[in-house]
Amino acid sequence: MQTINDIDKWERTVRFDESRNSVVLIDQRKLPYRYELVFTKDFYETARAVKDMTVRGAGAIGATAAYGMAQAALSFRGEDKTAFESLIFEAMHQLKSARPTAVDPANAIDFVMSRVISKDSIDDQKKSILAAAHEFAEAQIKQCYNIGLHGAELLFDGMRILTHCNAGALAFVAIGSATAPIYVAKKLGKKTYVFCDETRPRCQGASLTAWELARAGVSHEIIVDNCAGYLMSKRQIDAVIVGCDRLLAKTGHIVNKIGTYTKAVLAHRHSIPFYVALPISTIDWQCDSVDLVPIEERDSDEVLYMNGLDMDGVIRRIRIANPGSPARNPAFDITPPDLITAYITPIGVLKRSELGQLKTKSITDVG
Amino acid sequence: MQTINDIDKWERTVRFDESRNSVVLIDQRKLPYRYELVFTKDFYETARAVKDMTVRGAGAIGATAAYGMAQAALSFRGEDKTAFESLIFEAMHQLKSARPTAVDPANAIDFVMSRVISKDSIDDQKKSILAAAHEFAEAQIKQCYNIGLHGAELLFDGMRILTHCNAGALAFVAIGSATAPIYVAKKLGKKTYVFCDETRPRCQGASLTAWELARAGVSHEIIVDNCAGYLMSKRQIDAVIVGCDRLLAKTGHIVNKIGTYTKAVLAHRHSIPFYVALPISTIDWQCDSVDLVPIEERDSDEVLYMNGLDMDGVIRRIRIANPGSPARNPAFDITPPDLITAYITPIGVLKRSELGQLKTKSITDVG
Repeated sequence: MQTINDIDKWERTVRFDESRNSVVLIDQRKLPYRYELVFTKDFYETARAVKDMTVRGAGAIGATAAYGMAQAALSFRGEDKTAFESLIFEAMHQLKSARPTAVDPANAIDFVMSRVISKDSIDDQKKSILAAAHEFAEAQIKQCYNIGLHGAELLFDGMRILTHCNAGALAFVAIGSATAPIYVAKKLGKKTYVFCDETRPRCQGASLTAWELARAGVSHEIIVDNCAGYLMSKRQIDAVIVGCDRLLAKTGHIVNKIGTYTKAVLAHRHSIPFYVALPISTIDWQCDSVDLVPIEERDSDEVLYMNGLDMDGVIRRIRIANPGSPARNPAFDITPPDLITAYITPIGVLKRSELGQLKTKSITDVG
Repeated sequence: MQTINDIDKWERTVRFDESRNSVVLIDQRKLPYRYELVFTKDFYETARAVKDMTVRGAGAIGATAAYGMAQAALSFRGEDKTAFESLIFEAMHQLKSARPTAVDPANAIDFVMSRVISKDSIDDQKKSILAAAHEFAEAQIKQCYNIGLHGAELLFDGMRILTHCNAGALAFVAIGSATAPIYVAKKLGKKTYVFCDETRPRCQGASLTAWELARAGVSHEIIVDNCAGYLMSKRQIDAVIVGCDRLLAKTGHIVNKIGTYTKAVLAHRHSIPFYVALPISTIDWQCDSVDLVPIEERDSDEVLYMNGLDMDGVIRRIRIANPGSPARNPAFDITPPDLITAYITPIGVLKRSELGQLKTKSITDVG
């Protein structure tokens, strides 16, 4: 396996500003039209940024939650350990519940808390929490890089890849999960052509993935979510690579952005490989039934309205559906393992039966 | 089979105004926000209205093409038969080529022309053409009604139906194809619940089908195109009914709005019946290979931009995708017969092997 060591060159899409005690995020609701940084003023605002999707994406909200814990800890003044603990528990609650389907925030927070020694002074606990948050974020970048190295071996020059939603650098701290093999392949001299599902209702594919790929110089084309089946039937797609918000490691099911399941069913019908890329933080080792995964139902206005740039360069919201008609908006769906060709992980490309190899890996093991 | 004879009460969505020599259309690009009639001033404008989707939908563009022929004929002044014929041929060309994938315009024009006796005076030919156009439009309403009567027998009270795009009254002259069983079932006391796929890129489901169903008092909900797979996996959809733009009667394949194939694949995986509703005018008896059907590729701006109503009540166009990223926009896809449970036609609900029964039917046979 070749390696390319340029991890430090990647922009961090989630950071922590210690001097301001702020989590620093790219406002993804304004991309691709405006590149604006958001400095959250406290962990409540950080949790809100997750909930309102200022930041979204499995790993990105994991790192945001980890840094949100640091932000909560560092904001504490005084020596009352009980008060400190109750602040920490409140932060845990807020940051874990902001997006119920994703498992990264919970895993990131559990990791951060595992580094806290309750006998330590409050100051030392603060330092441990911040250090753990950084460790989580940096490990995730390295894991994404290794996903890229392993995944790139599956790709060939000229390959036409479909991806859904955004599992790119914006969805992690850098590099991304589903995009990592594409980026690394490019560095290795294998050019790919990417079809970006627009990914209604929030169009993360058309806005975020297309923006990322354009910046990275990857040839791509936006298609509506209805289109991939047609392209597959015309043999114009060679592989599908998606990220995920939760892997149920016991069963092999993945939970990912609504529409992922549909693409997996189509790929299966056309014997096109369907890959799921994920770091260790996205693994749920507890849950053994998809029926127990809470599927977030978001505001129906996400379906009924669209945001975009008008002719005067103003970001504007318009209604795109019949006034008075209701809408339903589940944000995720579930793809069963029989539709998944392989899982691209930091330790290698695994079949379902090999997922157990991940069991020994901690959230910060990089490969 | 019960009958309900209220055909005359249905609004005609495509009409001909003889005093103005205009085809009268509802401007579907402005629905559901504005209800505006368009009076085309000549057959060129009528063809443009088809091309730019002022009017769309299999039967509606068939009737529009038929009336466009009448408009061309009636516009002719003088006694020069050669000049009259060349005008008629020019109208045929313009009206047939406006939407290449759909077969209704070609079938409607061929029907109209079959009623022309070239030995007749120009005046008599004009009368024949106009009478044939009316005959086509009225037959289509009756066929849609019979589709409704046959299709309603497949529905049960409380049934949850998915439909894609708009195959409703707006897509025909009245009643619709895919919506006909739903409307007739309602009159027979069987209430259904309809999930409207929004149907990107032009959102005919969210804008037109939802508007129609709301006016007809049918319970419904808009979903993004990504959502149906999830609802099927949760057993929340009992049947799929779609229209089509072309049935290849020799093979059983249908050509319909992009995304239809995807829904058929999903329905098949979940053993959910998938019905295609169509009148006689949508049948292509010639073509025996889907590879020969031209799939219209429309302007990529339909993917990259959206129209809708802003907060001030102005219809506005916004960009919804990364500036600079290209898009691909095939407007139709092909669904093979192994995914189609049955075809709901004016003469009954037919299996693929029974499609031959339609062979003896003329375009104006009502059942």
